[in-house]
Amino acid sequence: MIQVAVIGAGYWGPNLIRNFNQIPDARVAYVCDLDASKLTTLAAQYPTLVATSDYVRILDDSQVDAVVIATPVSTHRALALDALRAGKHVLVEKPLAATAQAAREMNAAARAAQRVLMVGHTFIYNPAVVKVKEYIERGALGEIYYIDSARVNLGLHQFDINVIWDLAPHDISMILYWLGRRPLRVSARGNSYTQTDIEDVAFITLEFADKIMAHIHVSWMSPAKLRRTTIVGSKQMAVYDDLEVAEKVKLYDMGVEQLALNADTRAELRRTYRVGDVISPRLDVAEPLRVECKHFIDCIVEGKTPLTDGDAGLAVVRILEAATRSLREGGRTIELEKDSALL
Amino acid sequence: MIQVAVIGAGYWGPNLIRNFNQIPDARVAYVCDLDASKLTTLAAQYPTLVATSDYVRILDDSQVDAVVIATPVSTHRALALDALRAGKHVLVEKPLAATAQAAREMNAAARAAQRVLMVGHTFIYNPAVVKVKEYIERGALGEIYYIDSARVNLGLHQFDINVIWDLAPHDISMILYWLGRRPLRVSARGNSYTQTDIEDVAFITLEFADKIMAHIHVSWMSPAKLRRTTIVGSKQMAVYDDLEVAEKVKLYDMGVEQLALNADTRAELRRTYRVGDVISPRLDVAEPLRVECKHFIDCIVEGKTPLTDGDAGLAVVRILEAATRSLREGGRTIELEKDSALL
Amino acid sequence: MIQVAVIGAGYWGPNLIRNFNQIPDARVAYVCDLDASKLTTLAAQYPTLVATSDYVRILDDSQVDAVVIATPVSTHRALALDALRAGKHVLVEKPLAATAQAAREMNAAARAAQRVLMVGHTFIYNPAVVKVKEYIERGALGEIYYIDSARVNLGLHQFDINVIWDLAPHDISMILYWLGRRPLRVSARGNSYTQTDIEDVAFITLEFADKIMAHIHVSWMSPAKLRRTTIVGSKQMAVYDDLEVAEKVKLYDMGVEQLALNADTRAELRRTYRVGDVISPRLDVAEPLRVECKHFIDCIVEGKTPLTDGDAGLAVVRILEAATRSLREGGRTIELEKDSALL
Amino acid sequence: MIQVAVIGAGYWGPNLIRNFNQIPDARVAYVCDLDASKLTTLAAQYPTLVATSDYVRILDDSQVDAVVIATPVSTHRALALDALRAGKHVLVEKPLAATAQAAREMNAAARAAQRVLMVGHTFIYNPAVVKVKEYIERGALGEIYYIDSARVNLGLHQFDINVIWDLAPHDISMILYWLGRRPLRVSARGNSYTQTDIEDVAFITLEFADKIMAHIHVSWMSPAKLRRTTIVGSKQMAVYDDLEVAEKVKLYDMGVEQLALNADTRAELRRTYRVGDVISPRLDVAEPLRVECKHFIDCIVEGKTPLTDGDAGLAVVRILEAATRSLREGGRTIELEKDSALL
Repeated sequence: MIQVAVIGAGYWGPNLIRNFNQIPDARVAYVCDLDASKLTTLAAQYPTLVATSDYVRILDDSQVDAVVIATPVSTHRALALDALRAGKHVLVEKPLAATAQAAREMNAAARAAQRVLMVGHTFIYNPAVVKVKEYIERGALGEIYYIDSARVNLGLHQFDINVIWDLAPHDISMILYWLGRRPLRVSARGNSYTQTDIEDVAFITLEFADKIMAHIHVSWMSPAKLRRTTIVGSKQMAVYDDLEVAEKVKLYDMGVEQLALNADTRAELRRTYRVGDVISPRLDVAEPLRVECKHFIDCIVEGKTPLTDGDAGLAVVRILEAATRSLREGGRTIELEKDSALL
Repeated sequence: MIQVAVIGAGYWGPNLIRNFNQIPDARVAYVCDLDASKLTTLAAQYPTLVATSDYVRILDDSQVDAVVIATPVSTHRALALDALRAGKHVLVEKPLAATAQAAREMNAAARAAQRVLMVGHTFIYNPAVVKVKEYIERGALGEIYYIDSARVNLGLHQFDINVIWDLAPHDISMILYWLGRRPLRVSARGNSYTQTDIEDVAFITLEFADKIMAHIHVSWMSPAKLRRTTIVGSKQMAVYDDLEVAEKVKLYDMGVEQLALNADTRAELRRTYRVGDVISPRLDVAEPLRVECKHFIDCIVEGKTPLTDGDAGLAVVRILEAATRSLREGGRTIELEKDSALL
Repeated sequence: MIQVAVIGAGYWGPNLIRNFNQIPDARVAYVCDLDASKLTTLAAQYPTLVATSDYVRILDDSQVDAVVIATPVSTHRALALDALRAGKHVLVEKPLAATAQAAREMNAAARAAQRVLMVGHTFIYNPAVVKVKEYIERGALGEIYYIDSARVNLGLHQFDINVIWDLAPHDISMILYWLGRRPLRVSARGNSYTQTDIEDVAFITLEFADKIMAHIHVSWMSPAKLRRTTIVGSKQMAVYDDLEVAEKVKLYDMGVEQLALNADTRAELRRTYRVGDVISPRLDVAEPLRVECKHFIDCIVEGKTPLTDGDAGLAVVRILEAATRSLREGGRTIELEKDSALL
Repeated sequence: MIQVAVIGAGYWGPNLIRNFNQIPDARVAYVCDLDASKLTTLAAQYPTLVATSDYVRILDDSQVDAVVIATPVSTHRALALDALRAGKHVLVEKPLAATAQAAREMNAAARAAQRVLMVGHTFIYNPAVVKVKEYIERGALGEIYYIDSARVNLGLHQFDINVIWDLAPHDISMILYWLGRRPLRVSARGNSYTQTDIEDVAFITLEFADKIMAHIHVSWMSPAKLRRTTIVGSKQMAVYDDLEVAEKVKLYDMGVEQLALNADTRAELRRTYRVGDVISPRLDVAEPLRVECKHFIDCIVEGKTPLTDGDAGLAVVRILEAATRSLREGGRTIELEKDSALL
């Protein structure tokens, strides 16, 4: 039985507690927060849970195997380093850290302590995202050309991080997972309308080798929620729309190759909305956070490296950092591998 | 009765002929194309229509009041200049010209000939676009912050112009019309996947004074058609989705001001998709092309300046030119008013 | 070249003229209507068309091969009988006649004159409807259990016929075509709210042998348009939604057999919206009315029996008649083959 | 603090426990089920909860104020009667009882014991349903003409009750709540395809005074889930679609009166999908089951009659009973007030 402590009882913390408690091999022993009212609520709900405002107490308890950090991102580094040095396995909510430098220190500490360091890129454990990965892996889409993602909604503004750090980690982690590679260049444009220096709208471009491109639109100011990603390949194309209840993933059996070659098809497209069949595959029914929590426990028990390990967390943070810098420099292209400030 | 000649009998030409013929004050007297089979088809349909492959014959006919040019964009300049110099009023399909320089020559020729020069920015005559303009004019949206537009679909590739020149004129003309101002800076990123040097995917950013921003995504390689524009203001927001059959325009009665000020609203947004009422207004039933054709005839008869005159056409062409240049220079920001090549 | 005369220049007449004129083997020679303004409009559009208010002139013209009747249903019988007796082939808009008795007379007249009698059940020529028929024919759906159809919208009230006669012919003709059989029993419930004795809402049930059932909801008073038919089979199910622009037909690869047998599936359904893949097939791009018009011409030229011949028209009329009677008798079940008034 | 015991730990029981535990004035003291594994799971989750397979123990515990019955419907009567006679307040899941006779006995027992008897018609506590009620109460819809409801999905078959008893209680309870009256006549048609004598598809008609009609379609065999109710009034119309995430209720500001009177509007409807504005109102964010549980506790504490009391439960059961009888008698109209078997 893995004993888990959850630090941070805000919006996400209770979800983590509920999910870890439903895994047979795990039990949440502690919850830690500075807000006493949140502790009281959780303690009432989980009578065996120890609620504390002192996280040192957790680190000192040798019964605790793992620490889950769901606090504001600026605190991730310090909490994770302390926990790793205390010999705990650590799961950190996304984004892994507030700077690439912090993420690197955390990775180093995990290696030194020989402990699991995992980041909560939940979407990687989402059956829809996994299905798209399957399509890509078995070549169904052909060569990938570009990915376009929109993650916009109204008003979940943060006060400490901008919209890129709040929303884009989801898209970036999916894109890196699907492509299996890292971008060469990052750029972004956007603005802060409601708060000084906290951008609430951004358009981000990632450029990879082989002309592969990804574009991400994130916003806290869009009246209608969108969670929609299009993956365009040479053979087929896919759309993943997380707001669709019954048909989250659609595979369009028409690719760019066919379009380019076929005059009849081109003529037909003038008169219709699409050509080719569309398939919406059956998806596994699984709560992604449950899968993620279980994966963390499995990695601890079996000594495995997580799918979303500290390196995956670092890769995302580097892009967030570069995108924010680009945005603030008027959309300048940031060369990820050549920019010493990013190394 | 205004006698009209239509040059270009391709995809759009027959629509122009049908619409002009349904305006009481106008009659299409000539159609001109180099493709004899297209002429035959149209002649059979409209027995009184003179079909010719020689446009000089049209210019020489003093009965012809107006020439409508629906040919490939590279031919717009020469045809329009000849027609204007022959004393004809001219309606040119969008985009007005292949270069800003050509557009300027066309404007000068129209002024010299004292003839109407109009560009076919059809969306400006669309009841949905007009409704959004009304909202903006009467302050319903408050201060405009940003506009985000997606115009993507599968496969209507052009061989002579890239996707920016093909699709973005619609969005750019709407945005300039709504905002009533011109951008200071333009940038774009994109790629050509299926043809050498003909970009088929692009992401364009327009920056205006007062931090107003517009973003346009155009693509010929997206499996699912999108025609969706979001207008974000300080008081309210609007979405114009041209693919919606019954609710093309939606007005969301919640603006950024309210969001920023109201803690309860922010909390509520965590738990729901939206706050505030949504109104989808009744729209006039009108075919935009019919309204456009009628406006052209009215301008001729009444000596008025068209809503989409040569200057409006030039403004769009300058942005198309800048966007394509930016794209080819890796997304570099183009300062519209400072770049001598654009003046 | 088949010479066609169109009688009735109301809503549907101009569509018929346009379509017949685009078929190489046909030409519309006459249009007939009592409304002179409609004739003037059409004559301006088609200069070679003879416009007349006297249909006898058409019947007397031996050059005319075929007469298309698009007048109010109460006039179908007399016009069709006169045309058939004058040796013309006849296409009648749906429904074929105002009574089953009239439809029988028309069929008899067609047989006696050895002329084609066809009814304009347009949906039978719709690629989406044909695709569903293909699925059924090749057993993809298994045994058909029931069909549920909704055809509702706002306000296209008729003054001479009720909503059953106005809208249900579409659904009934599709259902008979798909099932390849006739119902044993018909019942209907509904009401007239806006006009005395002209029902504007109805719910119709058709019962076939082998427990097959069809239900049709028609209304002129529904605020949101619906055109949606579900076909439930033992192996798979299909939905045909005519308002969907890109995915009109969907095939759900899960049937009742599987559901009944599989406990895991049943449990999974508690947690999700669906199981199994969904396929939306590519459909041919064809205007159903064009296909219908061409089929009429082909039947004349090749001496074939139309897919929607007079018998198909009669079958629909019998059901309309029985449904209206059932509605007016409080929903009483009408036995189609046993009710002498219907034979 | 009201002490609650929940009998029945199946699909719905855990939701009841969670919700009652989140109401400050209530605490779930017992859970009772015959399935030991379900008890074990719940006991682990709620350490202070007493889990038992013996409901008599609950009735004997004088600390228990209220009993919530979430067992199969055939057991409702016996459990409720025992609980009421033991002096407990009782909340019974819908439908209240398996027969109208049983429902009457339960009502009599509640009156005799002077205890609250409430039925779990959850939809009456749904903000969307309440909003429609508000529209009706303040006359926004005018006179109500008819209500049409579809509640269909795939495969949640029950083995002890048919689809009418499983799904229609939701629609019937909403319709009676909105209209504030009871139907005069009930009829239904349907079939059992997958199980003998357990109907899995049904179409139900309710007829009220003043020509008001309601139609309900319920099915366990429909591939695509629908939860959609249309309310047609003389002044305006409303649609409540429970599957819509952001716009569950829409109010169409066009009624039958306007349509009937206005020739221009009728003509416009030929060319468009709708006329008039559409408003989707902001809805309160509330979990209906939470509101329901709180209402039960409030009624106990304040001695109030529940909105969904035993009489409301009986009214629904009478209609379910009549509908099933009608279906089995070939759709015969059942006169609710004249049929002695129903009194």
